[in-house]
This record gives sequence, structure tokens and C-alpha cells, in this order.
Amino acid sequence: MSDARAPTAAMLVIGDEILSGRTKDKNIGFVADTLTDIGIDLEEVRIVADREAAIVEAVLALAARYDFVFTSGGIGPTHDDITADSIARAFNLSIDVDPRAAEILHAYWQQRGIEPNESRLRMARIPDGARLIANTVSAAPGFVVRNVFVMAGVPSILQAMMDEVVKMLPASRPVLSETIEAHRGEGDIAVSAAEVQAAYPNVRIGSYPYHDGTRFTTRLVLRSRDAEALAAARAAMDRALKNA
Amino acid sequence: MSDARAPTAAMLVIGDEILSGRTKDKNIGFVADTLTDIGIDLEEVRIVADREAAIVEAVLALAARYDFVFTSGGIGPTHDDITADSIARAFNLSIDVDPRAAEILHAYWQQRGIEPNESRLRMARIPDGARLIANTVSAAPGFVVRNVFVMAGVPSILQAMMDEVVKMLPASRPVLSETIEAHRGEGDIAVSAAEVQAAYPNVRIGSYPYHDGTRFTTRLVLRSRDAEALAAARAAMDRALKNA
Repeated sequence: MSDARAPTAAMLVIGDEILSGRTKDKNIGFVADTLTDIGIDLEEVRIVADREAAIVEAVLALAARYDFVFTSGGIGPTHDDITADSIARAFNLSIDVDPRAAEILHAYWQQRGIEPNESRLRMARIPDGARLIANTVSAAPGFVVRNVFVMAGVPSILQAMMDEVVKMLPASRPVLSETIEAHRGEGDIAVSAAEVQAAYPNVRIGSYPYHDGTRFTTRLVLRSRDAEALAAARAAMDRALKNA
Repeated sequence: MSDARAPTAAMLVIGDEILSGRTKDKNIGFVADTLTDIGIDLEEVRIVADREAAIVEAVLALAARYDFVFTSGGIGPTHDDITADSIARAFNLSIDVDPRAAEILHAYWQQRGIEPNESRLRMARIPDGARLIANTVSAAPGFVVRNVFVMAGVPSILQAMMDEVVKMLPASRPVLSETIEAHRGEGDIAVSAAEVQAAYPNVRIGSYPYHDGTRFTTRLVLRSRDAEALAAARAAMDRALKNA
């Protein structure tokens, strides 16, 4: 590779409702798109239940292996929202109602005539020393512990938090891509794709079959951080498809 | 728990295109729904790239921990389809073109005037001793190695394969559920939900906040394999909400 290694990332989705199928996740695709845009490689995603042992094990494994970990879910006010406490447990940090978070919540509640209660204040429980992530949608903040960015599971809130998170992340050289509609099945273009892939190791060629409503066809996506290599690989792939 | 432990499962999604965000996964929700319907607990999902080391590590970890593992993606004819070989590597099995799979493919190709080639025949590579999973959509079969069910990533094909897989799985006592629309925010119902949860350990109460277009509200979902406990918990929750 001609450029420095891109930062790597993992995502951890926390929630029984995704595993039961009752809620269909919309956050993985959003986080994947956002990280691709800013040149961070999302290398793994895990989805685990709202159970402390599962959260602790997954977050420690991912935080040790990747530069950044992004979590979604489990930071609301109810009994099954155990992400903040689980993250504190994972990193051996104390956790209590954070004065900064409590102030944000009290101001938001006052403005809306919402009565504070103990459950609501759970949303201000933040591990000791964490940096807050602003929540422009519903006030209750996310937070950052070491390389772990902890966000809400409600998509509109996660998206607002991710806007804030992006500002905290290092800028990297983005991954460029070229898309080619092959207009034929994978079996017809596989040899050509393998040849072009072998000739351009700097470019990653993905082959994505799909049904266009009438027949199976294939989309080829070429990705690279190197614009010249990408253009050359695309030209080679176009030629190979014309001759196939 | 009054009933025997339900079988557990994990899903492994294999594909760079999901991690880059270019393709939005539709298979996790489908597999989750299907397993919930038949009473198998999906406890973890992982998404990894099309890289042998990543696939081998994930499949071994999940196969050791859960009763069943379901994979999607990476069994097509192109150079980036390495799932079958990776599964063989994981379990130390030899792999080659399987005569049963080749026969299925040749018959399908002949019927459609498709020319066999080496890439297409890659789809008949099946680890030694595996049981085949029929593909009623596009012929190329999935397969089962030990407790791992290997399926295609194209949603229509995965769904057809999952229909076959369900017939191979043990029937279990399904998880019953009751859904309650709380018509108020999570902070208003959190205390009640925690009390009912404590009183009915056999029932799992999930609290799912969402924005209904106007405001944040909450859906409570009560789940149990015990119909009586579920009905009692629902009645208690209804009472608690009325009095809250």
C-alpha cells in the first residue's frame, strides 16, 4: 500500500430487540456509510443482548483489536439499559450520576415541564472521566471511554451523536470507489474479475450479485485509497468485460 | 425457568459490502424473525470481512459457544467468495468440487443454456462430508458442517435456504410475546417496568423508545415461554401503567 494504514473500527450493537427480530437495525448501515466517508475501515460488527457479561466481553475484545469502537443501544432510562454500567465494569471505572450530564438533563426537563425522577436520572450515569457526546435530539448524552464511543440506539439520536463523534475522529484519506454494472451473472464475469484483481492488488474488487426483478446480474465495486490505481483497474475491468 | 433451556444460536454475516455500507443487510432481521418463530434464541451476531482468518476465527468461536451457527454470504462463483474454503479450513476438512452439488448445477445450467466454467463450478466446492441445503431459487446449494449452516447472502436465496434449514432444526417451545404501547416516554414508565420485571423473572420485559413523528414514546414487549406467567405480567404491567 502506498499510503499509511487507515484507522480500523468495530461496531457493537446492544439490544435484545434486534436479536429477537422485533426491531430491524438501521444503525449498522449508517455507521458503515459514515466511517467509509471519512476513511475509517469498519472491520467487524457484533450484536449482543442486554446482558452485562456479553457487553463486557465484546467491548473488551473489540477495543483491544481495533482503533475505535462504536456502540449503539442501552443508554436509556429503563431497567434493561445497562450499557453505561457495563462499559464502566469492562474498564474498571467507577460510575455515578455525572454532574455535567445531570445539568444538561435538568435544563432540558425544565424547559419541557418534565418531572425529574430516579429512572430518568439513570441517563446521567456516566463512567468516571468519560468525555460526553452531545445529543441534539433529546439531550441525554453519549460518552467516550478510551477508544469506545457509546451512543443511543434510537436511529435519529444515534445519527445526531455520530455527527458529533465525526468531529472527534482523525481525518483520513477517504476510500474512493468505482461501480460497474456488469449486466450479466456472476458466473460470466468471475474469471475477468479475478484477473483484474490479481493485476491490481492495491484495489479491492467486490462482486455483488443481485436480482434486478428479471434476472440475476452483478455489480462490481472497485475500492482504493489510490486514485490512479483505481482508474487503471476500472479501465482494465471495462476492457475485460467488453471482451468477455 | 419451568421449561428446558431453549437452543441457542449465532449468526455470522460475511461480506465487505455490508461493512463498507454499500449494501444494507436484510438477512439478520429475517434470520432473527425465523428463529424467534421456532423458539431458538439468537444470542449473538457478527459481521466480518471476506477474509479467511476473520471467518475462521469467528465461526470457531461461535460454533463452540452456541448450539447452531447460521452464516450468510460468500458462497458465489467469484474470487471474493471464500466462505466454503474458510469453513473447511476452520474444521480441518478437505474441500473439492462435490459430485452432488456439481450434478445439481449442471442440470440447472443445461436447462438454461448456461455454459459451465471453472468459476461457476466453484459454487460446487463443498467441505467433505457436509450435508447440502437445497437452493430453490438459483440451484447452487448451501451446506451444513457440524452445527454450522452455510447460506448465500442474496436475500431471496437466503430466505429459500432458511426454509429448508428450518426443517432440519429441532422444534422448540416458541417464545410468546405481548406488546404494550405505553403512550409516554421511557422516563415515565421506567419505575413501573422495573417493578414488574422484578416480580416476574420468568418474563423478559424490553422497553423500546421510538419517535412516533410527534414525540418520543415507548413500546414495551414482554416475552416468555410460559403463557401463564406472560399473561400475569401483562396484567400487572397494564395496572402499573394505569396508576403511573
